[in-house]
Amino acid sequence: MRDLAGRLDLCSINTATLGHQAPIGAMIEAVAKMGFGGIAPWRRDLEGEDVAAVARQIRETGLRVSGLCRSTYFPAASAAGRQAAIDDNRRAVDQAAELGAACFVLVVGSLPEESRDLPRARQEVEEGIAALLPHARAAGVRLALEPLHPVYAADRSAITTITEALDLAERVEPVAEHLGLAVDAYHVWWDPALAPGIARAGRDGRLFALHICDWLRVTRDPLTDRGMMGDGVIDLPALRGMVEDAGYEGAVEVEIFSSHDWWRRPMEETLAVTADRLQTVC
Amino acid sequence: MRDLAGRLDLCSINTATLGHQAPIGAMIEAVAKMGFGGIAPWRRDLEGEDVAAVARQIRETGLRVSGLCRSTYFPAASAAGRQAAIDDNRRAVDQAAELGAACFVLVVGSLPEESRDLPRARQEVEEGIAALLPHARAAGVRLALEPLHPVYAADRSAITTITEALDLAERVEPVAEHLGLAVDAYHVWWDPALAPGIARAGRDGRLFALHICDWLRVTRDPLTDRGMMGDGVIDLPALRGMVEDAGYEGAVEVEIFSSHDWWRRPMEETLAVTADRLQTVC
Repeated sequence: MRDLAGRLDLCSINTATLGHQAPIGAMIEAVAKMGFGGIAPWRRDLEGEDVAAVARQIRETGLRVSGLCRSTYFPAASAAGRQAAIDDNRRAVDQAAELGAACFVLVVGSLPEESRDLPRARQEVEEGIAALLPHARAAGVRLALEPLHPVYAADRSAITTITEALDLAERVEPVAEHLGLAVDAYHVWWDPALAPGIARAGRDGRLFALHICDWLRVTRDPLTDRGMMGDGVIDLPALRGMVEDAGYEGAVEVEIFSSHDWWRRPMEETLAVTADRLQTVC
Repeated sequence: MRDLAGRLDLCSINTATLGHQAPIGAMIEAVAKMGFGGIAPWRRDLEGEDVAAVARQIRETGLRVSGLCRSTYFPAASAAGRQAAIDDNRRAVDQAAELGAACFVLVVGSLPEESRDLPRARQEVEEGIAALLPHARAAGVRLALEPLHPVYAADRSAITTITEALDLAERVEPVAEHLGLAVDAYHVWWDPALAPGIARAGRDGRLFALHICDWLRVTRDPLTDRGMMGDGVIDLPALRGMVEDAGYEGAVEVEIFSSHDWWRRPMEETLAVTADRLQTVC
């Protein structure tokens, strides 16, 4: 397991952590200035921007792109809707390629409105990823399927565990090359099969991204009350140890959705606290 | 799978559904009057009551007791705290015996304050249940371990899946007799291993209780915004079918925590809607 003290170059900031409160150019500058090694933008940060220019700015500041967030949900009520999602995700893969992103993060969606058919949603997710994969291969972009916490099973992700994500990946791309996982501490920390799941992901060569934040004991809302590392209950050193012992050598990416706290603070303060916590409690 | 139309006698009302807004005696009367076959009280409903008299009233109205809710959390920061929990749960087992309850529901707890050690919490849960089991056997009371949704993994239950609960039960009581599961739709509906888990629970003779409500697509708070059956995304007929096909013949118990909606309505209205939904959408 790597020692992060003095090694912010191993760490990356997901722009969601900053509440998307500044344009991408300003976020790139702030993240680089604090000494982080990487950044992970969202597609919304790129809207109205010249992606080639953004990519150039990132390169010039010496940052790497640990990931591009995130896919349009695959399940939809109609075939046309499902095709539109695949098409949209192909365009995002092209953006990820232009940014030189380590991966394109797949948050896959779940039940379309009016549906209660979770097995069908899972099937549509699998078919959507299978349809996207050739384009990702051609673009040289790795797809990082992110199992989400089961609290999001209704609307955001039909895929909720590392085991389930690995099973899907194995069916779609039996030998891992362009389809792997994003392991996010917030989403998987509770899983009784966490240790064997991470070990298997490593053996299979599917550890494409590691996201961290913390689970607050008292969670005020299920989506945007995630905690700064050290403020919650996740044993982050244990989790990071499992992932790195399984062979992961990529960035430690911080992604905190926090409308109640961190999004209300100046970007520089959030980055400074993040830098400190990465080196002391993770 | 049983047809619930005209068969409210197969159904039971967990008093949490009524928001504990009336004394137990009034709840018993209202539940029986609406034609339900059972009731599942909470220990708080029994505080200050003569439990023998409550048991008599329940018998006289023809109701069965589908369960008594619920255990004091097992994990604690000190050995004394863990022992106190076991002692308290023994007293609750005695109450369950006096009520003739089909089971005593174990909601097991998780991380004590300041702890991030989930494996240790799971160990303390297992040791606590093992310590409680002989008393339950002697009292003739079945313990129904209820895996909770992972959204409660920090504070309410270190045990989050049917598979995990069955593994624990198998270690503590290899041949099922007084240790089984309460399967609650709200807690397990998202699980990719739901079908094999329920089938195994049936084969192992560990299906002691079935709780239902619904998962609302937009959940305003993680604890008390559960939905009335039919208002959410759970495929309840599919889930009940799995449980009953696996051999479950007990009550279909309705348990809805709803500070945003149902707890604000008169008890009779909630019971009437519950009766309707049980017969039409479950």
